Amino acid sequence: MTIAAHRWVMTAVNEPMSRQDFTIEAPGAGDAVVEIAGCGVCHTDLGYLYDGVRLNHELPLALGHEISGRVIATGPGAEDWNGKAVIIAAVIPCGECDLCQRGKGTICRSQQMPGNDIQGGFASHITVPARGLCAVDETRMAAQGMQLADLSVVADAVTTPYQAAIQSGIGAGDLAVVIGVGGVGGYAVQVAAALGATVIAIDVDEAKLAAVAEHGAAKTFNAREISGRDLKKAIFAFTKDNGLRSTEWFIFECSGTAAGQQTAYGLLVHGATLSVVGFTMDKTELRLSNLMAFHARALGNWGCTPDLYDGAIDLVLDGKIKVLPFVERHPLTDINTIFEAAHAHQLQRRAILTP
Amino acid sequence: MTIAAHRWVMTAVNEPMSRQDFTIEAPGAGDAVVEIAGCGVCHTDLGYLYDGVRLNHELPLALGHEISGRVIATGPGAEDWNGKAVIIAAVIPCGECDLCQRGKGTICRSQQMPGNDIQGGFASHITVPARGLCAVDETRMAAQGMQLADLSVVADAVTTPYQAAIQSGIGAGDLAVVIGVGGVGGYAVQVAAALGATVIAIDVDEAKLAAVAEHGAAKTFNAREISGRDLKKAIFAFTKDNGLRSTEWFIFECSGTAAGQQTAYGLLVHGATLSVVGFTMDKTELRLSNLMAFHARALGNWGCTPDLYDGAIDLVLDGKIKVLPFVERHPLTDINTIFEAAHAHQLQRRAILTP
Repeated sequence: MTIAAHRWVMTAVNEPMSRQDFTIEAPGAGDAVVEIAGCGVCHTDLGYLYDGVRLNHELPLALGHEISGRVIATGPGAEDWNGKAVIIAAVIPCGECDLCQRGKGTICRSQQMPGNDIQGGFASHITVPARGLCAVDETRMAAQGMQLADLSVVADAVTTPYQAAIQSGIGAGDLAVVIGVGGVGGYAVQVAAALGATVIAIDVDEAKLAAVAEHGAAKTFNAREISGRDLKKAIFAFTKDNGLRSTEWFIFECSGTAAGQQTAYGLLVHGATLSVVGFTMDKTELRLSNLMAFHARALGNWGCTPDLYDGAIDLVLDGKIKVLPFVERHPLTDINTIFEAAHAHQLQRRAILTP
Repeated sequence: MTIAAHRWVMTAVNEPMSRQDFTIEAPGAGDAVVEIAGCGVCHTDLGYLYDGVRLNHELPLALGHEISGRVIATGPGAEDWNGKAVIIAAVIPCGECDLCQRGKGTICRSQQMPGNDIQGGFASHITVPARGLCAVDETRMAAQGMQLADLSVVADAVTTPYQAAIQSGIGAGDLAVVIGVGGVGGYAVQVAAALGATVIAIDVDEAKLAAVAEHGAAKTFNAREISGRDLKKAIFAFTKDNGLRSTEWFIFECSGTAAGQQTAYGLLVHGATLSVVGFTMDKTELRLSNLMAFHARALGNWGCTPDLYDGAIDLVLDGKIKVLPFVERHPLTDINTIFEAAHAHQLQRRAILTP
């Protein structure tokens, strides 16, 4: 078999991406060829293209790691996936190393991320190890009024905060405080609410706060309008008024900014869990011993292992996490225009590029 | 019954402590009167007396929270403890609040610490809730050549790093890196080694490094002689040479200094666990997102709940943790001299005051 395919590749930092044709031969053992339905444009992609963040694969390279589609060809051992609607895990652990064998896939040193370690999802097709595939129930998807392309953002944008939430142990009756409710943090709000928590959302952008107020956040604060000390007092008051605990708050830092991290760290209470989800190279000045004095903890979260995807997909297919209000579809041929608009913060929703 | 007793009380910051006689009446329900065998002098006590660290109980107050002794009287419900050799937990959760009922005793808001919330252990006797008592097998104690007074330091100095180690999940085959091997960190080395880990000790004091090299540390580094980057390289080399992992290091910050915390944080690797055991008011400048990039975690540790004491005592009574090389007994009447010597860093070992 030979499949005619194409991808839009990055050739240099700050240069427009260009279309590249390629052919796909019969996939190897354990591999699957996915005809791509959609690929989400993530902040990480912008970092690669505009900021020169280091890529593991040499250029030219198609970016894109939030991918959904349909399996159209499989290699030996992956035949069961043929024809299935799938989401591709944004980070695919090797599955074979000592770390993977011990269930530590997030720190697998041979993990593959489409659009970084291998060719990515801004393409018509992609070949990936089948162990990175997560099946989608198309009947339930249709019942939610969703198309397969819409589900692409489940990879990364939904699953990353999902893994952080599962790792934190948050559940019914808990208080979640999400700092930074953009592409990832907005879903962190919905994930925490879907898991039964009462959610407070904090951001500096009123439009984002208004959006999450309609989808999961019980209370919002604009960090520009309230100082750290008053914010903590206001949250204590909120917990008191709502019969929630003044201890063991679950804080999710999703802003990936030093200011957001300062805010998040300042909200530590006794037994608190601070999940570090956002990334920034900036440093922050912290009293590390507060973790000791509060018997609190800070948990870093990297991606999401494929075994947790089913749980996240279920929440979306059950309608407990809404994706449609936060995405907009565009043709893949508009990739350069859409990247520029995203880079200029002109998009209100996450863009999904469809071939 | 009436017991004639005395204690040495702090009356003001930076003033010598003075002897105060008192009488003990029949203990209340659930309480036990302990005739004190010994009470360890902890860095925390020095903070109260010399630095004016805030005490929860009003002055005059006997300091001291590392207490061993024998139960000589009990109130209703505590009769089983009569005559037993015991260690008193340095922090006694109330046992009744919602947090305690959910197994979160470390963050109980009604916890009692002798020598802070209630009268402490620099005394002939103390009355405490029996739920804070931990039994000592005197036959095994004698077999180790120990007296009951020697076991006082198990409370806090041994149990605090023990809880931190248990919480971290460290075990056989793991690498532990202990930063700051003084009163608490020295036992952190022994605890980690007793739990099966290979231990690297880091300090700026050659004498302390030499001591732990004889008791649990497989390798030592003087932080004054090696920079952070070279230190990490050297530890990677050590793990390679010794068939240990280059991931998932268990780092115990016991120095309670900003410099130690910088060193500890700089040693984060993929899947690392940083246990924050030492306390300092100082802040440190950290790249918090490293926790995310490494999928690592930082776990604060406050004290040790009484239910974990048996495990720590077992390690001491089995001879897996050596206490005797690290303690020296002095008469309680010398309390002011000993405090001054400890404050001036003139003691090589932890002082235990015996009534």
